[in-house]
Amino acid sequence: MSLQTIINDSERLLLGEQISDVYKKDAYVTDVVDVQAVALVKTTDEVRKLVNYAIEQDLKIIARGAGTGVAGAQVPIHGNELIIDVSQMKQIIELDEATMTLTVEPGVLLSEIQEYVESRGYFYPPDPGSKHSTIGGNVATNAGGMRAVKYGTTRDYVRAMEVVMPTGETVELGSLNIKSSSGYDLKNLLIGSEGTLGIITQIKLKVLPLPKYKQSVLLAFDSVTSATDGVLTILSNGIEPTALELFERGTIAYSEKFTKELLPLQLGDAYVLMTLDDNEMQSITRRVKVVEQLVQNKAIAALTLNKEQEKSAWKLRDYILVALMEFTEFEMLDEVVPINRFAEMISYTKELQRKHGIRVINFGHAGDGNIHTVLMKEDLEQEIWTAKREALLADLYEKVANLGGLPSAEHGIGIIKKSYLEKMINPVELNLMRKVKNAIDPDDRLNPGKLI
Amino acid sequence: MSLQTIINDSERLLLGEQISDVYKKDAYVTDVVDVQAVALVKTTDEVRKLVNYAIEQDLKIIARGAGTGVAGAQVPIHGNELIIDVSQMKQIIELDEATMTLTVEPGVLLSEIQEYVESRGYFYPPDPGSKHSTIGGNVATNAGGMRAVKYGTTRDYVRAMEVVMPTGETVELGSLNIKSSSGYDLKNLLIGSEGTLGIITQIKLKVLPLPKYKQSVLLAFDSVTSATDGVLTILSNGIEPTALELFERGTIAYSEKFTKELLPLQLGDAYVLMTLDDNEMQSITRRVKVVEQLVQNKAIAALTLNKEQEKSAWKLRDYILVALMEFTEFEMLDEVVPINRFAEMISYTKELQRKHGIRVINFGHAGDGNIHTVLMKEDLEQEIWTAKREALLADLYEKVANLGGLPSAEHGIGIIKKSYLEKMINPVELNLMRKVKNAIDPDDRLNPGKLI
Repeated sequence: MSLQTIINDSERLLLGEQISDVYKKDAYVTDVVDVQAVALVKTTDEVRKLVNYAIEQDLKIIARGAGTGVAGAQVPIHGNELIIDVSQMKQIIELDEATMTLTVEPGVLLSEIQEYVESRGYFYPPDPGSKHSTIGGNVATNAGGMRAVKYGTTRDYVRAMEVVMPTGETVELGSLNIKSSSGYDLKNLLIGSEGTLGIITQIKLKVLPLPKYKQSVLLAFDSVTSATDGVLTILSNGIEPTALELFERGTIAYSEKFTKELLPLQLGDAYVLMTLDDNEMQSITRRVKVVEQLVQNKAIAALTLNKEQEKSAWKLRDYILVALMEFTEFEMLDEVVPINRFAEMISYTKELQRKHGIRVINFGHAGDGNIHTVLMKEDLEQEIWTAKREALLADLYEKVANLGGLPSAEHGIGIIKKSYLEKMINPVELNLMRKVKNAIDPDDRLNPGKLI
Repeated sequence: MSLQTIINDSERLLLGEQISDVYKKDAYVTDVVDVQAVALVKTTDEVRKLVNYAIEQDLKIIARGAGTGVAGAQVPIHGNELIIDVSQMKQIIELDEATMTLTVEPGVLLSEIQEYVESRGYFYPPDPGSKHSTIGGNVATNAGGMRAVKYGTTRDYVRAMEVVMPTGETVELGSLNIKSSSGYDLKNLLIGSEGTLGIITQIKLKVLPLPKYKQSVLLAFDSVTSATDGVLTILSNGIEPTALELFERGTIAYSEKFTKELLPLQLGDAYVLMTLDDNEMQSITRRVKVVEQLVQNKAIAALTLNKEQEKSAWKLRDYILVALMEFTEFEMLDEVVPINRFAEMISYTKELQRKHGIRVINFGHAGDGNIHTVLMKEDLEQEIWTAKREALLADLYEKVANLGGLPSAEHGIGIIKKSYLEKMINPVELNLMRKVKNAIDPDDRLNPGKLI
């Protein structure tokens, strides 16, 4: 069977010069190599046939969604890769209100899912920054985002998924059952496996009733250390914040410059933007009061935001990356440490700034220990930037490991964090991962060279 | 190295006639075969040495906690098994309040964990019926229990665990990091694997702040169908019940006879015992009112229980099994179906009662679709009971499969549900499980013949 027989629509089968460079790079990986073909699939059956074709022709396969990944996981590195682009598998199939399950194809965008369910009174909690990422990519990286502190990550919202395995077999992993003690948890094994174990072709997501009310509070602190101290106090007192975003003054300043809006509080070196949600406003009001008391001796100021201030504060938070792009080339990390080591980690990045001469700023999800450290190129020459950055990263990931952290909280390992992961995790664990990969994909057909 | 060198304490090494039959059977599996030895380990190092000894001597290994399992997972079936009993690894090692993590050895009892954390203002939500089960066993079966509808199962509370692998290597899977996109999720693979992939020697559990208030409500319905209809309405309206236990009048009647107490409502054929918890009483009160409105046309009566009634109602629920034991031999199942098929499943068990001539009663966790169907021997002769029961189970599990359900929600597959699991899940999935088992334990050393 030829590729043309499988994808009987020339607009959905890209060959040779039809293949744009978009398929060969991502934000941080640009060493372009050629690919065999790009197939814009529309059905599971097409995916299955393509996998069988790849087996026959001994091609490697990369599954790909919107291409918003930033770890190089969707980038070809061998030259004999067949790219299966699922972005046209974008049907929202069904919202089953009885089991509160939304069935979607993998190419549906996160923003489409959020709008679809919210307009029907439901809520899909995972909220990664990139709203134009696909749900398939979210599952492949176990994407996290703003609301993980209360609601968990993508993993916690996948009830089941249809997967085409490297053998060409199709299988549904997971089920609509809420509890299971019926065999190995293969669903969670596939979630976060970055396309190296199977190709996701349909996903059944858990949705929740949409909370009726929400309220944001902005807290200003004189230092990151005081801010994380405040965060730990909030978490251990049953406040159940939906979001607990921390950013330095020096970080939000870029957003302020770019958007020409000002954060409603302008004092201190670190801020925590907290949101509470609930089905009753009284509960939120009470919890806001408790928070005010809890941080009384830790924060400089606490401001309960009105709707306009709330919109502005979140806009400033959301625009951090877009704003940075206006000012410099940069590399954003997504390291994670246990929540009580958050301040120590951020403070260490400042040491690294001094040691290596690269400007470093931070923001992140303080409620779950996930820091986005940003290394900024600014005026550095390319070679110096590359060398300094590598030296800084070696130090940084060593510290992450020493604090019991991990290289990636939500973006994935791909190729750019692979060497760090190898150094940071126990060789026994790494070897177990390789045994599992080899058992499921013995020909190393799916996304070879990525993750492990 | 001899066993005596590894376990240098004769009271902790049982051989030959010292090995009580307790080690050779469980509630439902009694075909006793001999075992090589029972080692009551105290340290990870002893476990590691025993695994190496088993490799040397080509013995099989069964890890075991309190022995409360009811699926035959801890029962020897070959005769060359070495039993590693972890019940003396019972230290509560540390409660780290900064990360809200409790570190325990696998032999600590669930009741000890609950008491320990609650007396310190924390909460460990998983609440399986058997409070004298060990946490190691809870993890090995992904135990569920009463509060899964709001809080999830054991899986959701394991941050990390130390495991001795079948190679004799020790590894920590998971971490204190709340988010991770750093490699395959081996922790979740091990959870629920019933001792077939590794031996758990230490567990780091997530704990929550203890909710300040709780309130139970008893709802009476004229049928199981109305009751599950009520349950679905409650779930889809954001009430967030902590527990939603359903039982038939015919089931609770045994508890009433045994305890000589009466359920506070005595009308209708089915009951739902609901608990709400929260940090403020107002929220509970409001939600109780909403529930009353929601079930107005579905329930016969709704009673907000005072403390005494609450205690009595939960006692009656908890005593169902103990009470049954007084009246008859029985087999309790733990099938699970999607929550909207709960009524259909229970109603089918009544058809089976008529068809096969075995009395069947039901109770279960209506909020998560987990039914405990109980088949009662009563006056049936042993052979007839065995034959009828097998015929009934074949029908019952076929129906479970047709409804998209699974054979075990929380007890595990062990040996008694193995043949049903094999029939019920997709052969591709079963084959994947076998590939994973073979990759991690190629000599089939850990708990062979169980689960898959």
